[in-house]
Amino acid sequence: MPPAAKTQEPLITSTTDLSPADAKWLTLQRLTYVDQTGASRTWEVASRKTRARTSGGVDAVAIGNVLLYPAPRPPATLLVIQYRPPLDAYTVEWPAGLIDEGETAEEAAVREFAEETGLKGCEVLGTSPVQAADPGLSNATMKMVMVRVRVEEGELPEQRLEDGEHIQRVVVPLGELYERLVEYSKQERTVVAAKLFHFAAGMEFARVNREEYGL
Amino acid sequence: MPPAAKTQEPLITSTTDLSPADAKWLTLQRLTYVDQTGASRTWEVASRKTRARTSGGVDAVAIGNVLLYPAPRPPATLLVIQYRPPLDAYTVEWPAGLIDEGETAEEAAVREFAEETGLKGCEVLGTSPVQAADPGLSNATMKMVMVRVRVEEGELPEQRLEDGEHIQRVVVPLGELYERLVEYSKQERTVVAAKLFHFAAGMEFARVNREEYGL
Repeated sequence: MPPAAKTQEPLITSTTDLSPADAKWLTLQRLTYVDQTGASRTWEVASRKTRARTSGGVDAVAIGNVLLYPAPRPPATLLVIQYRPPLDAYTVEWPAGLIDEGETAEEAAVREFAEETGLKGCEVLGTSPVQAADPGLSNATMKMVMVRVRVEEGELPEQRLEDGEHIQRVVVPLGELYERLVEYSKQERTVVAAKLFHFAAGMEFARVNREEYGL
Repeated sequence: MPPAAKTQEPLITSTTDLSPADAKWLTLQRLTYVDQTGASRTWEVASRKTRARTSGGVDAVAIGNVLLYPAPRPPATLLVIQYRPPLDAYTVEWPAGLIDEGETAEEAAVREFAEETGLKGCEVLGTSPVQAADPGLSNATMKMVMVRVRVEEGELPEQRLEDGEHIQRVVVPLGELYERLVEYSKQERTVVAAKLFHFAAGMEFARVNREEYGL
């Protein structure tokens, strides 16, 4: 068992400009390109320095997940809440992580899911194509891997977190995901990640408009 | 009518490191923060320099949209495909843009939707809470505004694009959105944006698992 963590509100104490040469994780670059009309133009881009050579050009995985409980408890999904310094806020996300050298997206997903949630033995249901995380700002890419795991009632098993990781887990019935994310968004210092919110909004859109739009 | 654009494949001709002082749009910073246990830690973050003072801390809007046609044509959504230098690829996205000074998210959505699609008179159906675009990498935030517009059969009206914008429009039936995005992902030099893909994956998840998971 790790020692009980002292808990206090995280606080940013300084912000300094960083030259790309001094940064370990990110870089800032100016691209010069010739556009469709033959004109020369520029674009500014933030990139990760950590993309694995073997990852097929993909930085990260997000782990969509279904938790199946003994009846009558409905199927649920596990979300992680953690302090994210870039936003100086707690974010609500699906478990996620960078792909390590030599890993496939599926291997990274199973590893990160076990580390962040404590749940082992998940089944991979499918993997999305490569997606652009925020294409106007960065070259960051990711795949969503959807997993499913059977869970007995009771406490979630212990996480295996890296030094400095403080990740709270919450389990939300799939049928309540959208409304729960809207509720989280109203909490102080709390922001839902766009990818998770869009997935939930898509579920809700299909449910509400099923008959009218023939979905 | 604008002059017919010469069309050639865009090409990146140079990539140079950029110090935050020399960048116009983005900056790279190191944050120092005290975490939940009282330990001092650092995090690297990319930020936009352009966030409007009046936007409530939100950088951008993405415009989810429903196009209603005369029966029997099914309801559809309009996607934009454009060359994105950060990825050196064409991305498939919903129309989107930065919020200007003095605009609400809804005003920015109606303006950008008209500019990028040529469709005027859209009705705003709803606005999401603030979402974090890529919370491990940047402080970028956005809201999704969902709009609906009635469209007559025929050509889409002319776009009003800014200098340097080359945006192709495609109209996809809502019921085929997920499979069409999977198909786009297989095309050469083409990547779907994560937010749009997650929305479509959520719709598909709800459709496929409706009965089994009670969605």
